[in-house]
Amino acid sequence: MFESAELGHKIKKSAYDKEVPDLREALLDIQMELAKSGAFQVIILLGGLDGSGRGATANLLNEWMDPRHIQTHGMGEPSDEELDRPMMWRFWRALPPKGKIGIFLGSWYTWPILNRVKGITKDSDLNQSLERAVQLEKMLVDEGALVLKFWFHLSKEKQEKRFKELEKSSLAYGTTIKQDKKLLKEYDAFQAVHEKVIRYTSTAEAPWLVVEGVDARYRNLTVGKVILKAIQDRLRLENAPPPRILAPPLMPPIDNLHLLKTLDMTQEIDKQDYKVELEKLQGRLNDLTRDPKFKYMSVIAVFEGNDAAGKGGSIRRITGALDARSYQVIPIAAPTEEERAQPYLWRFWRHLPRKGRVTIFDRSWYGRVLVERVEGFCSEADWMRAYGEINEFEAQMARHRILVIKFWLTITKDEQLRRFEERQQIGFKRFKITDEDWRNREKWEQYEQAVCDMVDRTSTLNAPWTLVEANSKNFARVKILKTLCERVEGKLKELGAQGLDYLDPPKKSR
Amino acid sequence: MFESAELGHKIKKSAYDKEVPDLREALLDIQMELAKSGAFQVIILLGGLDGSGRGATANLLNEWMDPRHIQTHGMGEPSDEELDRPMMWRFWRALPPKGKIGIFLGSWYTWPILNRVKGITKDSDLNQSLERAVQLEKMLVDEGALVLKFWFHLSKEKQEKRFKELEKSSLAYGTTIKQDKKLLKEYDAFQAVHEKVIRYTSTAEAPWLVVEGVDARYRNLTVGKVILKAIQDRLRLENAPPPRILAPPLMPPIDNLHLLKTLDMTQEIDKQDYKVELEKLQGRLNDLTRDPKFKYMSVIAVFEGNDAAGKGGSIRRITGALDARSYQVIPIAAPTEEERAQPYLWRFWRHLPRKGRVTIFDRSWYGRVLVERVEGFCSEADWMRAYGEINEFEAQMARHRILVIKFWLTITKDEQLRRFEERQQIGFKRFKITDEDWRNREKWEQYEQAVCDMVDRTSTLNAPWTLVEANSKNFARVKILKTLCERVEGKLKELGAQGLDYLDPPKKSR
Repeated sequence: MFESAELGHKIKKSAYDKEVPDLREALLDIQMELAKSGAFQVIILLGGLDGSGRGATANLLNEWMDPRHIQTHGMGEPSDEELDRPMMWRFWRALPPKGKIGIFLGSWYTWPILNRVKGITKDSDLNQSLERAVQLEKMLVDEGALVLKFWFHLSKEKQEKRFKELEKSSLAYGTTIKQDKKLLKEYDAFQAVHEKVIRYTSTAEAPWLVVEGVDARYRNLTVGKVILKAIQDRLRLENAPPPRILAPPLMPPIDNLHLLKTLDMTQEIDKQDYKVELEKLQGRLNDLTRDPKFKYMSVIAVFEGNDAAGKGGSIRRITGALDARSYQVIPIAAPTEEERAQPYLWRFWRHLPRKGRVTIFDRSWYGRVLVERVEGFCSEADWMRAYGEINEFEAQMARHRILVIKFWLTITKDEQLRRFEERQQIGFKRFKITDEDWRNREKWEQYEQAVCDMVDRTSTLNAPWTLVEANSKNFARVKILKTLCERVEGKLKELGAQGLDYLDPPKKSR
Repeated sequence: MFESAELGHKIKKSAYDKEVPDLREALLDIQMELAKSGAFQVIILLGGLDGSGRGATANLLNEWMDPRHIQTHGMGEPSDEELDRPMMWRFWRALPPKGKIGIFLGSWYTWPILNRVKGITKDSDLNQSLERAVQLEKMLVDEGALVLKFWFHLSKEKQEKRFKELEKSSLAYGTTIKQDKKLLKEYDAFQAVHEKVIRYTSTAEAPWLVVEGVDARYRNLTVGKVILKAIQDRLRLENAPPPRILAPPLMPPIDNLHLLKTLDMTQEIDKQDYKVELEKLQGRLNDLTRDPKFKYMSVIAVFEGNDAAGKGGSIRRITGALDARSYQVIPIAAPTEEERAQPYLWRFWRHLPRKGRVTIFDRSWYGRVLVERVEGFCSEADWMRAYGEINEFEAQMARHRILVIKFWLTITKDEQLRRFEERQQIGFKRFKITDEDWRNREKWEQYEQAVCDMVDRTSTLNAPWTLVEANSKNFARVKILKTLCERVEGKLKELGAQGLDYLDPPKKSR
């Protein structure tokens, strides 16, 4: 894999000086065109051995281009904030918006490689990390991003030479040198892992570009020219037709039976019983979140449902049971400008809770396969791939001990009509009903089909859907609180069985 | 994942009888249209629990459609022939050609699931199997195939009932019933694995379609309608524009240096020394293939190189050292009609050797990233993804103890001219030179670039490329034989260290 990057590529100073001015101008031009169009973001990974010139290249790109449109991320040791979330969270928060360029010196490859070389993880762990990396990059490319992965390579002999030069240089510090010498000793171990990483993650969408790191002029010209050509090509492509959808159809309706029709929508609860139950369940939930083990987990509750199904009221019955400092309610409306400039999952990643906290989403990432599908806000290819992306998103949460609890609140078409009309008549409720609600109602059957597909494709062992019969608001609230309590209780028991050692692993093993 | 498939879907006989004639006619029509166009193959997987109606559905499809255009594969226990090759070999040989429909009752999922449930394999093994399944299906879809995956589901209660009915039926045999009862006991273990499989491998390109297996009429209508619509949709798409290429460019030439230029092309060997060396090396190779451990491995030697670089002569020096019953030479020319109707790797999969054998490819699967790339016989997207597909192909061989040894024979442009002219003058060599050879010569630089990219992207620890300086034929032959001997020797040592227990695993653990 590294054959062409050990040949001793070299550019003469005179040739370099002649090429650079034109290249810089072209880079600046294309950067402006990109910023103006806001068509896509450019994600540049600079990987490779220490001493191979990654830092210098990042500096150079900032010098050659307009740094206002570049975000550079070192991605060293993760912060406490970051350790409290799934590994990918820190990368999601660092993604550049459309129109900008993000340069990553450390990436989703850095820690999996390091942990494997150090023997902290096994081959199967590395495989899974690489699998996640491939999925992340595929998603980014599907969302339109241009992903450029440079791998700077030095032969063992050249790395040794580089370190010796550094030792003499006034820029090097004692500790760095000591660390570097250790790295040199591990050269072969690193190379074996690097080879695997590059082979496995050189996909057609985002292949690694291996660059010989020895000669700075060669390195600079290579990186500059690749970036220039890639952005030029992609900007030209933006007007090309969208990709063909090669997916087979989802399940067609064959009989008239579907999931939502099997619910007993007449269920209700006596008013007096409701009061008693509510108080009991709220107390139980409060107790559960005060369990000492609760600080090793977190909860995400997702509320989806028909318009006017009573999501807000149900959420308030939950928050009423919680310490105000321990929860957040995230209402999801149309995405902001900032959010539209990112892959669609970005706006949800940013709200993942720290350990010991509860986050409630009033509508969620499922908008992609519900309203966006039905209203045609995204292409068929987009929502078809969303099921897999969402399952992977929730699997990452589960791995990080975030308990995901998902509710679909359903009401009958008649009950919705009754509530819509009531809302229009009662002054303080009028703001809750819009023309859009009436329009959505006309697509009732399409929404039902979308809900059934959603439940079938995203109800998993880790994160099952709970369908809530919500014609009776009180019945729905009790069912929701009961489900929450049971799921949290189950998770706490599981944590208890695993013991604290497991729960609180040393940071570096992440 | 199975919510909608436990609702008790049922179709009344009268409704069924009314729908079926039209559906059958439409299926027959579309099948003929597909066969006539030869545009793509349809690969139908029927997965699911025993007793869920997979066999009955396969029979029905053969009854409803024209069985001459359908190939049905049971895929039970693998044969000795099949056990001697990588797991995927038996599926490659069973792929339907374009224009036809292949129905698989067992698939690349069957054994990974079974082995995991039985505890023969671990979660990480299952993950890797699923990863390979996803890659295979992605490749099939990229090559144009329509992949339809049906999963027939029965709730535990329904499966039990089904088995009881079977017991009463005259069609059931004692052993089957005993086996079925055991399966029922393992229902929950199977379900946990099934859920994971379906979630992980429901990709946008080839999602699982979960079908309730209880009511035969519902099952039949569902499968029939999905197949009809999917083929109709795809036939309509065939005239759509090809997919956009979103890949960044490969490494551009920055300086004038590349891999092939660093070779010392003046190397030669004295004629007398050559004779001695040749005999010695041929004897050594012969000895190595007679090593008792050699029957636990096999060898694939790949020969690629410039036109007139001397591939044929080198191959004859190898075969001269081998027992005629132990090797095969596969010359690769333009694909046959049968081969063109399959994914491009199909013609190579069919020639994989059994254990203890040597297969020599005179040109190979690398044509995809060499001649097909340079001559534009496939799209950029096609050859870009080929690097990854080839690496995966060779990794599967390596896992099955097939030693892959790859040679690129290179000569200088001047030397090629000399050989071309010589061939034209010598009568018995004239057949070896064609107009095409002269045309290829005009694209010398483009071919060089393709060779460098190929080596960089497909030279792996398991299957590295050996570049052979072939201006002197004798020098090349000695280098090739020496490399072969060293690689085989290394592999035999490795096998010796692993012990026979490892080498000869029980069949069921595969």
